[in-house]
Amino acid sequence: MSRILANGVNKTSSLANALSDDENAVREIRKFLIDIVRQNGGGHGGSAIGMAPLGVALWRHTMRYNPLNADWFDRDRLVLSNGHAAMFIYTMMHVTGYPGMTLDEVKLYASPKAVDVKTGTWKSTICHGHPEIQVPGVEVTTGPLGQGIANAVGLAIASKHYAATFNHDGHNNISSRIYCITGDGCLQEGVAQEAMAIAGRLGLDNLVLCYDNNQVTCDGPLHWIVTEDTNAKLRALGWHVIDVFTGDTSVQDILAALTLAKSVKGQPTMINIRTTIGYGTSTAGTFKSHHGTYTNDDASLYASGTDTTHTLSARTKAYFSECAAVGQALEGKWNDNLKRYEAAFPEAYKSLQDRMTGKVDVGDLLTSMEVPNTIKSTREVNGTVFNKLMAQIPSMMAGGADLWNSNQMGDQSPRIFDSAHPEGRVIRYGIREHAMASISNGLAAYSPQGIIPVTATFFMFYLYAAPGVRMGALSDLQVIHVATHDSIGEGQNGPTHQPVELDSLYRAMPNLLYMRPSDAEEVVGAWMVALEAIKMQSIISLARDPALFKIPNTNRAKVSKGGYVIKEKEDALVTLVSCGSELQFATAAADELDGLGIPTRVVSMPCIRLFEQQASDYQDEVLSGSLHIISVEAYVSTIWARYCTGSIALDSFGYSGAGLDNFKRFGIDNQSIVRKVQAHIDALKSAKKPRRWTLL
Amino acid sequence: MSRILANGVNKTSSLANALSDDENAVREIRKFLIDIVRQNGGGHGGSAIGMAPLGVALWRHTMRYNPLNADWFDRDRLVLSNGHAAMFIYTMMHVTGYPGMTLDEVKLYASPKAVDVKTGTWKSTICHGHPEIQVPGVEVTTGPLGQGIANAVGLAIASKHYAATFNHDGHNNISSRIYCITGDGCLQEGVAQEAMAIAGRLGLDNLVLCYDNNQVTCDGPLHWIVTEDTNAKLRALGWHVIDVFTGDTSVQDILAALTLAKSVKGQPTMINIRTTIGYGTSTAGTFKSHHGTYTNDDASLYASGTDTTHTLSARTKAYFSECAAVGQALEGKWNDNLKRYEAAFPEAYKSLQDRMTGKVDVGDLLTSMEVPNTIKSTREVNGTVFNKLMAQIPSMMAGGADLWNSNQMGDQSPRIFDSAHPEGRVIRYGIREHAMASISNGLAAYSPQGIIPVTATFFMFYLYAAPGVRMGALSDLQVIHVATHDSIGEGQNGPTHQPVELDSLYRAMPNLLYMRPSDAEEVVGAWMVALEAIKMQSIISLARDPALFKIPNTNRAKVSKGGYVIKEKEDALVTLVSCGSELQFATAAADELDGLGIPTRVVSMPCIRLFEQQASDYQDEVLSGSLHIISVEAYVSTIWARYCTGSIALDSFGYSGAGLDNFKRFGIDNQSIVRKVQAHIDALKSAKKPRRWTLL
Repeated sequence: MSRILANGVNKTSSLANALSDDENAVREIRKFLIDIVRQNGGGHGGSAIGMAPLGVALWRHTMRYNPLNADWFDRDRLVLSNGHAAMFIYTMMHVTGYPGMTLDEVKLYASPKAVDVKTGTWKSTICHGHPEIQVPGVEVTTGPLGQGIANAVGLAIASKHYAATFNHDGHNNISSRIYCITGDGCLQEGVAQEAMAIAGRLGLDNLVLCYDNNQVTCDGPLHWIVTEDTNAKLRALGWHVIDVFTGDTSVQDILAALTLAKSVKGQPTMINIRTTIGYGTSTAGTFKSHHGTYTNDDASLYASGTDTTHTLSARTKAYFSECAAVGQALEGKWNDNLKRYEAAFPEAYKSLQDRMTGKVDVGDLLTSMEVPNTIKSTREVNGTVFNKLMAQIPSMMAGGADLWNSNQMGDQSPRIFDSAHPEGRVIRYGIREHAMASISNGLAAYSPQGIIPVTATFFMFYLYAAPGVRMGALSDLQVIHVATHDSIGEGQNGPTHQPVELDSLYRAMPNLLYMRPSDAEEVVGAWMVALEAIKMQSIISLARDPALFKIPNTNRAKVSKGGYVIKEKEDALVTLVSCGSELQFATAAADELDGLGIPTRVVSMPCIRLFEQQASDYQDEVLSGSLHIISVEAYVSTIWARYCTGSIALDSFGYSGAGLDNFKRFGIDNQSIVRKVQAHIDALKSAKKPRRWTLL
Repeated sequence: MSRILANGVNKTSSLANALSDDENAVREIRKFLIDIVRQNGGGHGGSAIGMAPLGVALWRHTMRYNPLNADWFDRDRLVLSNGHAAMFIYTMMHVTGYPGMTLDEVKLYASPKAVDVKTGTWKSTICHGHPEIQVPGVEVTTGPLGQGIANAVGLAIASKHYAATFNHDGHNNISSRIYCITGDGCLQEGVAQEAMAIAGRLGLDNLVLCYDNNQVTCDGPLHWIVTEDTNAKLRALGWHVIDVFTGDTSVQDILAALTLAKSVKGQPTMINIRTTIGYGTSTAGTFKSHHGTYTNDDASLYASGTDTTHTLSARTKAYFSECAAVGQALEGKWNDNLKRYEAAFPEAYKSLQDRMTGKVDVGDLLTSMEVPNTIKSTREVNGTVFNKLMAQIPSMMAGGADLWNSNQMGDQSPRIFDSAHPEGRVIRYGIREHAMASISNGLAAYSPQGIIPVTATFFMFYLYAAPGVRMGALSDLQVIHVATHDSIGEGQNGPTHQPVELDSLYRAMPNLLYMRPSDAEEVVGAWMVALEAIKMQSIISLARDPALFKIPNTNRAKVSKGGYVIKEKEDALVTLVSCGSELQFATAAADELDGLGIPTRVVSMPCIRLFEQQASDYQDEVLSGSLHIISVEAYVSTIWARYCTGSIALDSFGYSGAGLDNFKRFGIDNQSIVRKVQAHIDALKSAKKPRRWTLL
């Protein structure tokens, strides 16, 4: 009996009995997957069917995890980078006994039943179209291709870092390995190339990339778009590569590769597993199997002679029931070990406990911090604050994209993370901004608040990183991004390096705080907010220069309000609202306007989203009843119109000139602000127009 | 005399005389570069100094170009992907005699002299911090790393396509080769990996990537961040690789490699040139040479015994003066050949002339186009319109990122661009969105309007592509992006695939039109606009479903106004402003509100930026004096507040549910709109608040 026959096209129980337990499980999982696809006529079944032997090899034979406690700290992590094959992990979680992953839930996959008929409320299923981290057992949210590979690199760095920090004297508290499944798609994405290069550079030998090599993508055969030698490419990046040519049929061959990977030292491993999309079905090996449905014949291919759908035999149930038993035993033994560790290393144990419970103790470091008044820019202040926080918070892990010096993040050398120093807490990401953000999500996803990742590059290059930042925001992961050289103040490098519209993206992006502190005081306040924002992404947006050390009345504690008055004025005609470098210009302009008989208030608004979250009364108080509320910021003004009657802003890209000259060139300096406000007031005096936002 | 001595540390004219012309030119160029760095104490001199022999090999010995006509159609193209080394090409353009690149201009490089002292106006130099396409002789704007490599791939595709289309019977009208210079940085960026994979897949043997391998980046030595075998990686991607180990000193060795590259067929070539950053200077080989300045000793290293800066010897001037002579001769011969081509192939000649002059004749195709009324979604309509345009416009070249079928772009097979069919006009970019956008910029940059690139993927994945789209907007390049599956209407795939904030980026990005047509009529209108926007990027944002075939009173011609009234109402209390799928809901809600005694107008606003460009009177007329102007759109609302008093909008990520259910779930369906407007009006009746934007 050929291997192919062993796993398909045989329906009698006698033949089923002739199969090994592994083969039988593969066969029933394929039937189950086909049933899921057929229940709603869609989903991404083809790759899941192809990967069934990999599923059995990983979940039944390889991974250390406990279905009954999805959050067990030392579990191996599984990332499904080809997130569209979500039904694959839902099915594996179902068969291995994750309590929440009931048959009813799995049946809701790809279901349009949005309303719970009983209660009339919106139904929230856990079997989303793509895996979402909020579901117990799902390690990271995936879907946009390539992200998962980068996340897995972050998880692998986290595990290495924890192990180096907490495994003493034979106490292996941390031994988790990271398994990442990828299809043909992720491997094409730039973010994955970047992340794989970093993994190779760092020698992450706890990372195994399982390549479901089925040679088919959405549009057609892979050779239409890829002719590279993927093995050679990965080897060039420093990876160990293992081939499996029998991925459709042999659990044992895949298992052998997974076992071999454990013995590889100093290199991450890719296992190149040849599979057939929709193996055995009528559309096998074609793009139609990628997200199409299956026929009656396909369904009967792996059937056991009954008409019942979504069922598993008693044999298969018994076979997978061991997963929970093994998991419980693993976790129990680990707990025992931890007790011995506590006795042997009480201090280290306490630190580990803090990390496992996400405890972060900043003390009064920030509230009482004094910043030297010799500081010339907010990026420089930030460097000082950042380094004090690194010394105070052991869970902070930072990294930059080759602009660490320009970001003024300080001396990195004592804390570099590397294969020789995995206890290190500064990661050199290289010129790979996108991977930096997505790897940071992986760091954060290892354990809630166990690691607080910090990234750094120019603000403009957070456009490269944006897909990663978005995934972090969507996944409720805390990452703090230090974005220097914001606005046209960046200067000499010119419009390619000067963000004028990027704030609009991040100010609109849900679950993210975009903060533009104006001086040292507010930089400290921004860090206070970012550290408290434990389920969000934060961007601290900083200027190359200039900054005053202290703008009168700025207040670190008030940054958390988003906006607050720094200059009050009775019977004000104008309120200037500003942030970042521009606040100093607005403040100077306000004084001048006062002198010209135009009473002017000033509001510092470092974070619009935080201001948005304040009570309406507070918002009214801050913005006041002044006729003109005018924002001053060297960006294209979009969201400001929610609060302002007009904006002094940009409507074009920047220019390659010195920073201060640029503010003048584009009319955002003290004198221009005064002139524009005067002209605006004069124009409106004569006009009888409806009050609408105006670009001054 | 060693090679190293030959190019440095010798100051007497007798030694200079002992140098070959090449060596002498290299030496003087290095002195010139040091003078430029020293003139303002900065810039990126180190890599330029290292690349001087490459500069001589390319500009003096290899490239076909005419300094006296930078736009000669059949010139070889040079892309400086490591754009921070801008002074390198300014210097080469200066020495080879581009008329605009005067010594005065070069001296303005990195100069803070922003104001012209004579006129008091802002000074526009052409020697920007990074190369900008608007400067004659600069092929593409570069700076953000990796972009240039992708641009070069686009230029190479363009040249291949032109050659296949217009070179008949021995008439080689198109023979341009593409040279791209890259540093260590670009090679790390995801976009470059994607582009190099595409170049390998397409076998672009007219593309030569010159790798300035100096092993130093901003922060330090390259091995801190890169340990890959770059040659092996490129070979795995299908490239031919040539090593040059004497890049600091030997023009001839580099020249031999460039010559060898011409004989490589069916593969792009990378020449891996080992150089020393800041060769010979006191900071040579270190990151300090990356963007630092140089000492007096450094300046005297390559000096000729005089104190004069920025000068070239008569010998070097004579040596480079041949470039213009050779260029003039090349162009003259080419013009002669073109005349013979005209005689032999008058039809083809006319077509080529149209392409060279950027002539696009759409005729009345769009104004008279009838769209079948069986159409169910705007993406489907778009596919119909797109295919008719492809048939009509020979300069249109399109491509997708493996979602061509889902984008409903139609049958691609007859027109695929490939090494076997370089006349093809549909490029399979693979799952490489970022490279798709950046390569398209290269296609557009080959010759103004000679190629109109079209890209296609889901709107969400234009976040991956955003850095490329931005560079295109900044570079005044026409690219039309077809973005399907916009908004939460995307449905089943869930929040990872549903843009809610991406419109805010693109609506803020200068020089870009983000259009959301609501029905078939407006899809046609959007194409009319996009084809006219010859110096801009356009995004046509389309829904998976649903769409009405025709919403009453939509008008293709009025899309160019950005917004227009589709339902007027006397004494209206409410104006609903909407676009995309939501316009049909707004229209239905308006009818219902009318019935409830709330007179309601409806404005279709497919493009906010175009509306912004209309006269104030027109804007007032469209928005009217109704008390409430409420936008209806399933995105986070930012820029709408410029025009609206409130928005029915999102303030969170989406959900994995059926598309129509999602509109209900988030309160953007007919009933929710009616309910929210009623509640808003009631609430404001009692409130005495200042009129400010509200999220309904």
